[in-house]
Amino acid sequence: MADANANADPSGEGVISKKALKKQQKEAEKAAKKAERQAQKASEADVVEEDDYAKDRYGIPRMVQSHEKPDRKLVKVDTLTSALADQTVWIRARLHTSRGKGKQCFVVLRQQQFTIQGILNVNDTISKAMVKFTCGVSKESIVDVEGTVAVVGQKIESCTQQDVELRIQRFYVISQSLPRLPLQIEDASRPKGDEEEGGQAPTVNQDTRLDNRILDLRTPTNQAIFRLEGGVCQLFRESLRKRDFVEIHTPKIISAASEGGANVFTVSYFKTNAFLAQSPQLYKQMAISADFNKVFTVGAVFRAEDSNTHRHLTEFVGLDLEMAFDYHYHEVLDVIGGMFNDIFRGLRDLFATEIATVNKQFPAEPFKFLDPPLRLEYLEGVKMLKEAGVEMGEEDDLSTPNEKLLGRLVRAKYDTDFYILDKYPLAVRPFYTMPDPNNPKYSNSYDMFMRGEEILSGAQRIHDPEYLSERAKHHEIDLETIKSYIDSFRFGAPPHGGGGIGMERVCMLYLGLDNIRKTSLFPRDPKRLTP
Amino acid sequence: MADANANADPSGEGVISKKALKKQQKEAEKAAKKAERQAQKASEADVVEEDDYAKDRYGIPRMVQSHEKPDRKLVKVDTLTSALADQTVWIRARLHTSRGKGKQCFVVLRQQQFTIQGILNVNDTISKAMVKFTCGVSKESIVDVEGTVAVVGQKIESCTQQDVELRIQRFYVISQSLPRLPLQIEDASRPKGDEEEGGQAPTVNQDTRLDNRILDLRTPTNQAIFRLEGGVCQLFRESLRKRDFVEIHTPKIISAASEGGANVFTVSYFKTNAFLAQSPQLYKQMAISADFNKVFTVGAVFRAEDSNTHRHLTEFVGLDLEMAFDYHYHEVLDVIGGMFNDIFRGLRDLFATEIATVNKQFPAEPFKFLDPPLRLEYLEGVKMLKEAGVEMGEEDDLSTPNEKLLGRLVRAKYDTDFYILDKYPLAVRPFYTMPDPNNPKYSNSYDMFMRGEEILSGAQRIHDPEYLSERAKHHEIDLETIKSYIDSFRFGAPPHGGGGIGMERVCMLYLGLDNIRKTSLFPRDPKRLTP
Repeated sequence: MADANANADPSGEGVISKKALKKQQKEAEKAAKKAERQAQKASEADVVEEDDYAKDRYGIPRMVQSHEKPDRKLVKVDTLTSALADQTVWIRARLHTSRGKGKQCFVVLRQQQFTIQGILNVNDTISKAMVKFTCGVSKESIVDVEGTVAVVGQKIESCTQQDVELRIQRFYVISQSLPRLPLQIEDASRPKGDEEEGGQAPTVNQDTRLDNRILDLRTPTNQAIFRLEGGVCQLFRESLRKRDFVEIHTPKIISAASEGGANVFTVSYFKTNAFLAQSPQLYKQMAISADFNKVFTVGAVFRAEDSNTHRHLTEFVGLDLEMAFDYHYHEVLDVIGGMFNDIFRGLRDLFATEIATVNKQFPAEPFKFLDPPLRLEYLEGVKMLKEAGVEMGEEDDLSTPNEKLLGRLVRAKYDTDFYILDKYPLAVRPFYTMPDPNNPKYSNSYDMFMRGEEILSGAQRIHDPEYLSERAKHHEIDLETIKSYIDSFRFGAPPHGGGGIGMERVCMLYLGLDNIRKTSLFPRDPKRLTP
Repeated sequence: MADANANADPSGEGVISKKALKKQQKEAEKAAKKAERQAQKASEADVVEEDDYAKDRYGIPRMVQSHEKPDRKLVKVDTLTSALADQTVWIRARLHTSRGKGKQCFVVLRQQQFTIQGILNVNDTISKAMVKFTCGVSKESIVDVEGTVAVVGQKIESCTQQDVELRIQRFYVISQSLPRLPLQIEDASRPKGDEEEGGQAPTVNQDTRLDNRILDLRTPTNQAIFRLEGGVCQLFRESLRKRDFVEIHTPKIISAASEGGANVFTVSYFKTNAFLAQSPQLYKQMAISADFNKVFTVGAVFRAEDSNTHRHLTEFVGLDLEMAFDYHYHEVLDVIGGMFNDIFRGLRDLFATEIATVNKQFPAEPFKFLDPPLRLEYLEGVKMLKEAGVEMGEEDDLSTPNEKLLGRLVRAKYDTDFYILDKYPLAVRPFYTMPDPNNPKYSNSYDMFMRGEEILSGAQRIHDPEYLSERAKHHEIDLETIKSYIDSFRFGAPPHGGGGIGMERVCMLYLGLDNIRKTSLFPRDPKRLTP
């Protein structure tokens, strides 16, 4: 396409005539078409001109099929700094962009979050044909490049490796991309309304991103998000393992729909039907009855909820834990609070680069937390909301807007993005929640919040089968439907409590992102089953 | 029930009369009934005799509902050794067994894999009523016990804490078990045909175990198995993370049945149907196309296979990895081989106690492995089998019996329980397997074996979309059905390979167990969906 500024007068000699403008446009279009044809030709070109003195220095070699084990060592782009000046190295990277300019070709080579500029000049060893070939290779192709590391005078702002460039000597295509991409990595990497580009530069909408997730995931932001998300899981497990938790795996296919049968997916199971587990709740508790004492599990959970919001998925990764305690469920709160702080500290210290990368595209305030975490009682939360003008009863549940408002109030007052709200009204919690022995309208249960959104729900569970039956009856639940659950406490069960966390939500809220689809590798919602 | 030996003459004074025998039997039955009644009464007994001077020292306190946070510190059974002689401690444990004997009551208290003997004697502080109460508490109840650690003269062979016993001063029931257990922990813990007990003592069959899994899992063996299994996952991840792998999570609900649609579970998904993923294969490869370079994932995989064998489950935990490589897929083999050795070494060094515990009930030879692991080519394997008298062609697949035989031959020749078989015949592998460039009848693919059973299957995958289409056509696969799979390589993909492992199989084969249901917490097979 012709440049958007083609009608500005480059010579400064006054306003251009309409005719001249038209001519100029035509020429530009022609040039663009020619370049396209050349690129097309070049990308088909293992056919190299006979008399090309550089013919062994570029091209499309045979597919890597494990023919041989060459000695050639590939180095990583992020290691290319001025310390390697004048050294000749081989790298394998994606061709991020390329631009021909007379007898030169500038390329940017990309490896995950890292980029470096490369340059080819026609000279004694680099032929015109080689420069032409290089310029014609489609973006996103994977290339093997030999080059000499050269220190540059002026920082290269558009690359992560800003002090050096690569003087390319050899250039081979390892895997070709189609020349037309359904989205441009640069567009998908751009902050919304980027000021540097006058807020006019194109970005990519969410459905296009998700439809072409393989390309979308190649942006520096996505490379960073999913590396950090791996860190969330690792830190969750490490924190609990050092507290003597055992990792378990609970079945996803279950015979009875838990929690009343709403919002559950049905599976055909040989000659019968089964269901997909909405949480590992029952199985975690069975593991406690089975003497594992403290357990955690990381795995898929399924919700057949027809919710198309920024924070609902039909399939997500649950980080669940459950533990026996001695005397008071605050022992559990202490463990979970400490675990969250381990995660927040670990992300801050180990993933600073990733956080900075994400913030470049999606700016957010750094995540604040207190050590130990702030713990408020439900009634204190209600009081803060009332003081802020909200009308609600002391036993009412928190609506989502009120949760968010409370998050802002707490942040203003206590300077933290994470807090624990303890002692929820009994009436708004499931039947298996242990009532508060000192105030029967409340319960030994808690939610935890990140940036004003609920991230964990948990409680002391009733471990006495008779009392559990009584509470279930009070909730008008047919005891027959929960018989196996109640029976799992009939052979002695210790007092216990726990909670469940959505991994994608932790990642989204920690980074201050606006949609959970940004933190699910291949998200599933009522309208999306692919890719 | 009357003792089975009741008709043997205890006095040795000759054959007993029929009438006397009948009388004796009746008395025995009466005594048994009385004991049962007493136990019943005792377990109901918060009602304590008025004049009982020990009445504050035992009983059933109110349910632990988080009333208070007492200072009392509970100690762990495995810390009770002669180093604590004469100290008074509190423990919370299960009542494993109890036995009254005149004015004494002997109990065994159990905490996961660890047991200690406790004793109560009627004296100035312990009343007759207290001893009676203790003897009447149902096994498997959870109790809080205060006692003094006392060194014993003779080792207590039946407990893990053999040098000390607990002189009990206080005894409270925290959570009562039903008096009748569907299985006895001691029976479920017993080796089959235990020689010490003349091979006559009862054991528990697998279905009874699995039907009452909460009780079954309390055996020392099961406590050890699932702690070790947690270790398998931990070591898998640690080993790959140190090699720069990124942890990912792939969707379990997918829109198209992978690998031809056989053996796949169908899910109702709002107004359409979906399927449960049989492996994360496609998504792992997409992550490679999306530049994550090296990825692993731990998660549920589903097989709707109607196989009722010792090694098939319909749901199991997959340990999957995939990585880009530079020149030769043996780079992948090196990583996977090194990873397995990290797991074997870690289990041997970190889980020695657990391995010993399992071996007591299920004896097995220690698992042998070589560093680096043994690598054989398929044709060498075929040669070994042929030399052992097996008739097979050089391109035939290995049958399960032949795999096992080869495992024995390899162990005899190389002294290892783990080996890699490389370069499988192309014809027996999936269409996406990269053919061997040097011998078109073979392929760049491999299986790995533990104790003669396949534990991993993997290969270099074809990363070129045109070649992939060609191979799919050769396999007579309708290209339309795998379009999205092939398309995921159209925007440049590096050469890559990987493999998938069944977690339960690793654990089963490492420990030399005979059934995969022993290493699945709540196994799922065509006939079992509960608990």
